Amino acid sequence: MKINELKDPSQLKNCQIHELNELCEEIRTFLIENISHTGGHLASNLGIVELCVAMHVVFDSPNDKILFDVGHQSYVHKILTGRANQFSTLRKYNGLSGFQKRCESIHDCYEAGHSSTALSAALGFALARDYNHENHHVISVVGDASLMSGISLEALNTIGEKQCRMIILLNDNGMSISKNVGALSETLTKMRTSCLYTKTKKDVSELLLKNNATKPIYNTISNMKNSVKKSVVESSFFGDFGLDYLGPIDGHNLHQLIVTLQSAKEHHGPIVVHVCTKKGKGYPFAENDTSGNWHGISPFNVRTGELLSKLPENVVSWSEWIAMCVTKLAKENDDILAITPAMLTGSKLECFAKQFGDRIIDCGIAEDHAAILANGLACAGKRPFLAIYSSFLQRAYDPINHDICRMDLPVVIGIDRAGLVGEDGATHHGCFDIQLLRSLPNMILSQPKDAYEAQNLLYTAFHQNHPFAIRYPRGSVEICTKEMSEIEIGTWEELDTDEKIDLYVITYGSDVDAIYHKAAANHLSLGIINARFFKPMDTQKLDEIAENKLPVIVYETDILAGGLSSAILEYYNDTSQHVPLIRIGIDDHFVTHGSVSELRKAEGIDLNHLFDVIGDLIDAS
Amino acid sequence: MKINELKDPSQLKNCQIHELNELCEEIRTFLIENISHTGGHLASNLGIVELCVAMHVVFDSPNDKILFDVGHQSYVHKILTGRANQFSTLRKYNGLSGFQKRCESIHDCYEAGHSSTALSAALGFALARDYNHENHHVISVVGDASLMSGISLEALNTIGEKQCRMIILLNDNGMSISKNVGALSETLTKMRTSCLYTKTKKDVSELLLKNNATKPIYNTISNMKNSVKKSVVESSFFGDFGLDYLGPIDGHNLHQLIVTLQSAKEHHGPIVVHVCTKKGKGYPFAENDTSGNWHGISPFNVRTGELLSKLPENVVSWSEWIAMCVTKLAKENDDILAITPAMLTGSKLECFAKQFGDRIIDCGIAEDHAAILANGLACAGKRPFLAIYSSFLQRAYDPINHDICRMDLPVVIGIDRAGLVGEDGATHHGCFDIQLLRSLPNMILSQPKDAYEAQNLLYTAFHQNHPFAIRYPRGSVEICTKEMSEIEIGTWEELDTDEKIDLYVITYGSDVDAIYHKAAANHLSLGIINARFFKPMDTQKLDEIAENKLPVIVYETDILAGGLSSAILEYYNDTSQHVPLIRIGIDDHFVTHGSVSELRKAEGIDLNHLFDVIGDLIDAS
Repeated sequence: MKINELKDPSQLKNCQIHELNELCEEIRTFLIENISHTGGHLASNLGIVELCVAMHVVFDSPNDKILFDVGHQSYVHKILTGRANQFSTLRKYNGLSGFQKRCESIHDCYEAGHSSTALSAALGFALARDYNHENHHVISVVGDASLMSGISLEALNTIGEKQCRMIILLNDNGMSISKNVGALSETLTKMRTSCLYTKTKKDVSELLLKNNATKPIYNTISNMKNSVKKSVVESSFFGDFGLDYLGPIDGHNLHQLIVTLQSAKEHHGPIVVHVCTKKGKGYPFAENDTSGNWHGISPFNVRTGELLSKLPENVVSWSEWIAMCVTKLAKENDDILAITPAMLTGSKLECFAKQFGDRIIDCGIAEDHAAILANGLACAGKRPFLAIYSSFLQRAYDPINHDICRMDLPVVIGIDRAGLVGEDGATHHGCFDIQLLRSLPNMILSQPKDAYEAQNLLYTAFHQNHPFAIRYPRGSVEICTKEMSEIEIGTWEELDTDEKIDLYVITYGSDVDAIYHKAAANHLSLGIINARFFKPMDTQKLDEIAENKLPVIVYETDILAGGLSSAILEYYNDTSQHVPLIRIGIDDHFVTHGSVSELRKAEGIDLNHLFDVIGDLIDAS
Repeated sequence: MKINELKDPSQLKNCQIHELNELCEEIRTFLIENISHTGGHLASNLGIVELCVAMHVVFDSPNDKILFDVGHQSYVHKILTGRANQFSTLRKYNGLSGFQKRCESIHDCYEAGHSSTALSAALGFALARDYNHENHHVISVVGDASLMSGISLEALNTIGEKQCRMIILLNDNGMSISKNVGALSETLTKMRTSCLYTKTKKDVSELLLKNNATKPIYNTISNMKNSVKKSVVESSFFGDFGLDYLGPIDGHNLHQLIVTLQSAKEHHGPIVVHVCTKKGKGYPFAENDTSGNWHGISPFNVRTGELLSKLPENVVSWSEWIAMCVTKLAKENDDILAITPAMLTGSKLECFAKQFGDRIIDCGIAEDHAAILANGLACAGKRPFLAIYSSFLQRAYDPINHDICRMDLPVVIGIDRAGLVGEDGATHHGCFDIQLLRSLPNMILSQPKDAYEAQNLLYTAFHQNHPFAIRYPRGSVEICTKEMSEIEIGTWEELDTDEKIDLYVITYGSDVDAIYHKAAANHLSLGIINARFFKPMDTQKLDEIAENKLPVIVYETDILAGGLSSAILEYYNDTSQHVPLIRIGIDDHFVTHGSVSELRKAEGIDLNHLFDVIGDLIDAS
């Protein structure tokens, strides 16, 4: 079977095992080849090729509902449901999404991007089915790290109580993005290495050996089911949640997977099928990776495993720069600790971990717990640095409000991936945190324009006593070698391209310098305001701007409603100053995936659009 | 020992058991008597009298750190740490808080109000202690329902991994506010009723019988420890989290508690002490309550158990009215389901549960899971109603953003306890949700002024296809008997007290009518705008207001930053209309506890202040 001929998963049903195994190999080659060009989530998808094929052999999508937790591991599912032809557009603007997407296929019944939502959502599907007296299956595919997250455990608690028929495929590769943490991962490891694994494997293998390999596999399944059924055992952990348990089984043995899923299909009530997989299976670079570098990967050379684009010298990712600065500060202050919710690699905190292994805590996928833990440490006199992606910080909103800000404790929050992130799309853009955090009492919210300001904001944050959040984007920044120094909280910076200016542009982040240089190159006379504090704002500077009666553009690269310009409007209104603002930012909708530059253009938040507006204003004056 | 003479918990250390038992009885009488006047959390505090006494006998607060999860059960702790004299001010303005409060006592090391934060925070304290090479104990008191919440389970996962010395007192009364839910509660029940309970009880009792009751209990403890130590067993559930387990023990047997805690104190690593308590112990009305009515109670008659204040006929709580309307709608639409995160009683959904027992899902304390489950149901074609308190909705922000709004599915969210809630104070005021939700694409956010509008907003919500949230406050509302009808989404209502008006007041909720009647009674000519939709706003009405060039007051009863007036300022700015707003609302701080009317006065958001502002404006014109 050719991958590009796959139109519908029903085509798999009459295949023989050897054909399916061949298909798996083809899919692996296809994934490696395609992702080497587009970038994307490689390792997790290589790990569940057989599992996805087995699912689509055994179940009837779209009648049966298959939910992939997070969804970054749904590439094989996409291939099997007729989307292979579009893989060159993966994660590109107007192309295939890197996650499940309902508008993309009838086989995508739910969508995600953040982890640990599949079980709760799947329970919704299963309950709805039962209310409607329907009969289909609901299958969720959940990784081991995601299953240990609070929302998943809460869902298991309700699923166990409701006892409605659901199949939970625990895709256990012993990893989240990088190495798994937490006591439960030990418990899973024990299950994984239990003798049952071997036993089931042996039983099923023996039966399979007796098969006539030429018969379609469906004919043989009925004979094997009884044997597998015996493997439904009392797992203490899942049993405590009221769930039956089947496994562990070898996630790369197609025969065994098909037989087991067929058996799970006939099970009454909820059942966890424990499938052991190897992340990166079939591609040695990804298979041997323990640090998570091959989880989400940029375009690479298939043969050497080297990334095609490398950062110039003196340039590092923003995450890395922030981590370097925190590590430096931690050298001088023993009280500084770093906390990450399963994002050690993503937040580039390896350098911190290397130097201060006992002063970094990886909480697993648990943003709210991480934030409260940070606050507990602060309450006990420590100086925690909580590194968290903007879109995942949404999960920690309540602890940031109820714990950190209400108690007014000095937790320093590094808000990574703030603003549009590009290819990961709507679920990952970090464009809501300004409105979330600026309405919180006691919060200081900032964003540096460059590496120098970033280090100084961090320095400042660790030398004061309130909640202090620093946003920084995906992408890279030129490092600096200057000494760290303090920035007066709530002060903005004005960069004028001329002695006499025609208008103001209030903005933040790395756009500040970009606008300055473009304006200077074009001989435009602008007052560019680096609004490095969203809260508190520089009201003195705002008064000065108001006095000058010049046009004022507020150029935001996040959701407009409630953001920086909204705060400025509030201030001017409350001080009876009339300053009309030309507001540029993201309108009231979720932003799709694509490169950051394409998305910025589409959203009208690119420099070209800004300078068109500036040009019109200057022409009109 | 007289309760009012208690200045410091160290006073307990030389008491004999019979004195401590007498103290417990005194505390119970004191609690019942005082709470009957002030209202407050009665049942949970009656349940842990012996546990709190035992803790303060065994541990050395404030050197040892005692964290009460949520904190509504910290009354006994407050009494034992010298605050009995202030109990007549409990939950009153400028009085004692109903929760732990760091500013109130050195014995309150952490604060909460929302559940399930104690374990993460306690881990912070324990880690800080170890980093500092200190030696004190960290004890957290966590209820069984709270322990099953995701954040607690996440915390257990890290605690089990870190293995630092912590004592987790599982206060297991088999209840959250009302009956417990979820498969894990079954698991706990099994532990509770295990033969070990009897065994431990018997062993310890036998030893205790041998004691010379006249000796201070400290002398005897060392003899008993070995026996209790034997009870540290492999609990499968806690063992899976890497935790040792001791129990279950009788939470009303002071001897047994002291001996067990003393033993736990010498344990290395983290240990769960399973303490079985009876919620409401010692006060029959509270003891026999299974529905949660005695969890948080208004002032009552001690002898009869009757509430002192009753609502007039035709008046019900807002929660009840909303629940009645949803129940009515559910009669006509089989697809309507109700979902509550452990707030069946608080959200008054008993009427729904009574009629549609199989169409209501109590998820336990799991706001994020509840929101995703609701979205899963909506995705499968159902019409879920998610009832959630505003301050707890903060926990569900990410699912509302990432799942519900991003997928644009018709989940109807009833935001209960919106605005200031009064006596529960800063952790419970629901004054942040407008800014949270109005910046979310696809969200419709509304608040009715009265029962009629409430029913119509609900009717409208269930007859459209987008996320639709309806806020309503704590407090009561006069019911209505009119038929339900649709309200055009995004339309506001204008109520003029005169043909020619002097100014506009834009407001929302039950203040609309209150302002109207007060203005009419005082012969003031006001245009009162019922801004019943925060999103989308009535831009036609806003244009009309702008055209009239009259003063405009926006009277908000929530946090100002990013709220309704902020949205109006954005609109006027973006449509080049200059309309200065006089903004009344809650400034940039957390609001304390007290009656709603006192708090409104203190915050300058009461009608008196509003009408002072109105008077000044009219005088000036």
